[in-house]
Amino acid sequence: MINIANSFQEAQQAFLLLKQKSSQERVAFLEEVAKQIELLKETLIPIAAKESNLTEGRITGELGRTLGQIRLFSGLVGEGSWVEAVIDHEDAERKPVPKPDIRRMLRPLGPVVVFGASNFPLAFSTAGGDTISALASGCPVLYKAHPAHPETSRIVAKALQTAVEICQMPKGTFQHIEGGIDTGQELAAHPLAKAIAFTGSFKGGKALFDTCNKRDIPIPVYAEMGSVNPIFTFEAFLDENLESAATAYANSLVLGVGQFCTNPGLVFVPKSHEEAFSNQVINQLKTVSGAPMLHEGICKTYHEALKNLAIEEKLEWLLTTEANQLLIGNPSLAKVKASDWLNEDAFQEEVFGPFAIMVVYDSIEELEDVAIKLKGQLTCTVWASSKELAENAPFLNLLEERCGRLLFKGVPTGVEVGHAMQHGGPFPSTTDSRSTSVGSFAIKRFARPIAYQDMPEGLLPEELKEDNPLQILRMVDGEFIR
Amino acid sequence: MINIANSFQEAQQAFLLLKQKSSQERVAFLEEVAKQIELLKETLIPIAAKESNLTEGRITGELGRTLGQIRLFSGLVGEGSWVEAVIDHEDAERKPVPKPDIRRMLRPLGPVVVFGASNFPLAFSTAGGDTISALASGCPVLYKAHPAHPETSRIVAKALQTAVEICQMPKGTFQHIEGGIDTGQELAAHPLAKAIAFTGSFKGGKALFDTCNKRDIPIPVYAEMGSVNPIFTFEAFLDENLESAATAYANSLVLGVGQFCTNPGLVFVPKSHEEAFSNQVINQLKTVSGAPMLHEGICKTYHEALKNLAIEEKLEWLLTTEANQLLIGNPSLAKVKASDWLNEDAFQEEVFGPFAIMVVYDSIEELEDVAIKLKGQLTCTVWASSKELAENAPFLNLLEERCGRLLFKGVPTGVEVGHAMQHGGPFPSTTDSRSTSVGSFAIKRFARPIAYQDMPEGLLPEELKEDNPLQILRMVDGEFIR
Repeated sequence: MINIANSFQEAQQAFLLLKQKSSQERVAFLEEVAKQIELLKETLIPIAAKESNLTEGRITGELGRTLGQIRLFSGLVGEGSWVEAVIDHEDAERKPVPKPDIRRMLRPLGPVVVFGASNFPLAFSTAGGDTISALASGCPVLYKAHPAHPETSRIVAKALQTAVEICQMPKGTFQHIEGGIDTGQELAAHPLAKAIAFTGSFKGGKALFDTCNKRDIPIPVYAEMGSVNPIFTFEAFLDENLESAATAYANSLVLGVGQFCTNPGLVFVPKSHEEAFSNQVINQLKTVSGAPMLHEGICKTYHEALKNLAIEEKLEWLLTTEANQLLIGNPSLAKVKASDWLNEDAFQEEVFGPFAIMVVYDSIEELEDVAIKLKGQLTCTVWASSKELAENAPFLNLLEERCGRLLFKGVPTGVEVGHAMQHGGPFPSTTDSRSTSVGSFAIKRFARPIAYQDMPEGLLPEELKEDNPLQILRMVDGEFIR
Repeated sequence: MINIANSFQEAQQAFLLLKQKSSQERVAFLEEVAKQIELLKETLIPIAAKESNLTEGRITGELGRTLGQIRLFSGLVGEGSWVEAVIDHEDAERKPVPKPDIRRMLRPLGPVVVFGASNFPLAFSTAGGDTISALASGCPVLYKAHPAHPETSRIVAKALQTAVEICQMPKGTFQHIEGGIDTGQELAAHPLAKAIAFTGSFKGGKALFDTCNKRDIPIPVYAEMGSVNPIFTFEAFLDENLESAATAYANSLVLGVGQFCTNPGLVFVPKSHEEAFSNQVINQLKTVSGAPMLHEGICKTYHEALKNLAIEEKLEWLLTTEANQLLIGNPSLAKVKASDWLNEDAFQEEVFGPFAIMVVYDSIEELEDVAIKLKGQLTCTVWASSKELAENAPFLNLLEERCGRLLFKGVPTGVEVGHAMQHGGPFPSTTDSRSTSVGSFAIKRFARPIAYQDMPEGLLPEELKEDNPLQILRMVDGEFIR
């Protein structure tokens, strides 16, 4: 039995020490984490594949991404400018009162609780993006393992612990905690927790959000809860690209058995291309052989969601799947008129799995109503000709309000890990649209600004010392300089 | 009677248009706001002074600060780099899949509800820091006027409306709303509201925070709720500076009749200097003639808070004031042992007005316990010699967790408006320690990142166009360049 109070005491002790480590020490630690995980590759891949029902090929790719993420953050910490250092020098001569010296930078928040995701046993689990960005910022992590892949999680945790020891990071820098929903709630409610990162269902994320807002001291919750990631297709675009667009759409829908947060579960098609587009999508989906989902619970939920939608009279089913599958998630597709979609919230609920609703629209006015009615999304995608884009600026203006990432080519699945990525959209896709859980800016979730006024040079953090020993980009008296 | 639904419809319409205004149009608008307010100066100052009971001198200073703030934000918007533009170029040759072009920047959130503060009838009211930073980011503002200075608010609102007309900004860019607590709650609960900014009491801020977290779509609440802003004094420092330190402390305590969010309501003094320090403070406080507080309600609350503390047996009163004052807030001072302070939460509750508790400590260990027990503060101040600072790194390490600004000289009152300022600390001093309500970074509260993937050049916002027409600082493929 885990003693959560002790775990937090240890994390808090680690935090006070971690704050005193240099950024170079954090870089060395992150690099060591990557190295230790890579060393365990041969053991890790088959176990992760077995526990998640994902192919070894997919897991190998995910491992590469996980290592890439760690190196992105070690690069970011090594470069150092992410702390947003700002210096306003004193002016002793200013009237009526002298101006003090003020120096501001981002500092780590404290112990962070990270919840692993079932659909990314590596990249969004034990040493995934949330854990690594929190460690990179200087926060200790209490990691709540996802019960769907316990062995995978233990192996990666061991790699992290080894790196902690080798790099002489404080005990308590990383802690691996197994348990159920109650344990998760207890972790989120603990007074020493300073932030929560979560990737998973709306229900799970919202429960944590509510718990954390009711604490005596509320804390930020970064919950990425998925969305239906609509793709909007336009006539002239489809005139030119129907086959490739429909094929790309179908492939994106079934990628990873539809188990991505960015799975495009809604596609808007003009009436003119309704049949041609759906025929092509159906043909493509029929070539896909059913694949096992992450676990039986997810497969059951998938079929229950389809069963609930089956009673909707406005939905026309174009491709159905048998509900007697225990693990296999076959693709399914339904169709609805835009005018009916606008009247029913259920048509924009996420169904986790390879299911989509094709929405047939008559006019751009309908799409503008859709953009107003649409809930917050991680992504929205627009497939339109240049002319159509130019003509529909008001629609794009509305649509941008509804998402964190707006695509004009390609599909939303396949989230780049880079500096410009924004993986976080308006509620309910996440609980904090100001943050991203993928890419460099993810590190900023776990820090807050502190201003030091007239702090003696000797006490200043390296990032704020007068001669800029780390050579980071800073704003000094209003100018950005290194 | 205000029709709030209509106001939000108008704000939302304005928002869609505001997003299409160039940054130069926003700059011209902000400059015009400053100009229009300055034109009304002669009318404004006596009315604001009369409504707030603050002196014309103080109001004149606050007007200067208000104009300075507007110009800070217009400068920031004109320079343009605040949007954090990041460009990751495509790589069509990348294997196994081509890399898309992704461009990210901060975009305005939408209609913002701003609540005026009673203690800053200009600088944190109608055209104060919250309103101006929201407008600067491109958000329309629904401003809920503070009932303590209605006429002042109407005059400034008129200046804003005139600037809206002159600059042909959309109708609904700024709306002035009068009403009580119910109106405020209704504004915060409206589905089209996208963020809240508030400066005032814990009770008021927390009620808005709770309302906004319970919405169908929760929104960020930036509530600055004040704190007790402790000053920690050390022996060797007092050996050298007792008289000036005690005098500076007393003057800071009574500045603006103690009605600042950064008022230092707690001072920690070593046992060795207890008498000398308190005598000096009391002598200084006795030279202060009582001054009227902002309004009778605040004066009544001040005396009630003192009455509630009077029953505390551990408090020794060094200076008391009569509770029969209707408007005058005389200074008062009590004393307690650090060991007793540690056992009673009431000794760190904010008393809005010129009251302080002097806490007498025996050892640094006690101060470390204080730093752990202390609630979140806007500021903490340490008055210590270089040697004492060097010796007490663990205390400073703990203390930094408790505040947004850490001072080593001077007093916390007098908040610089600049780039490096952080005016926002851990809860309960604010509801969001990641934000500041004073200084340049305040603008970021009202924006969120959006990533545009493979967006055609013609559609890109100016900030993200390939040739950088605004010449802003951007991160391009990992390098910061202009």
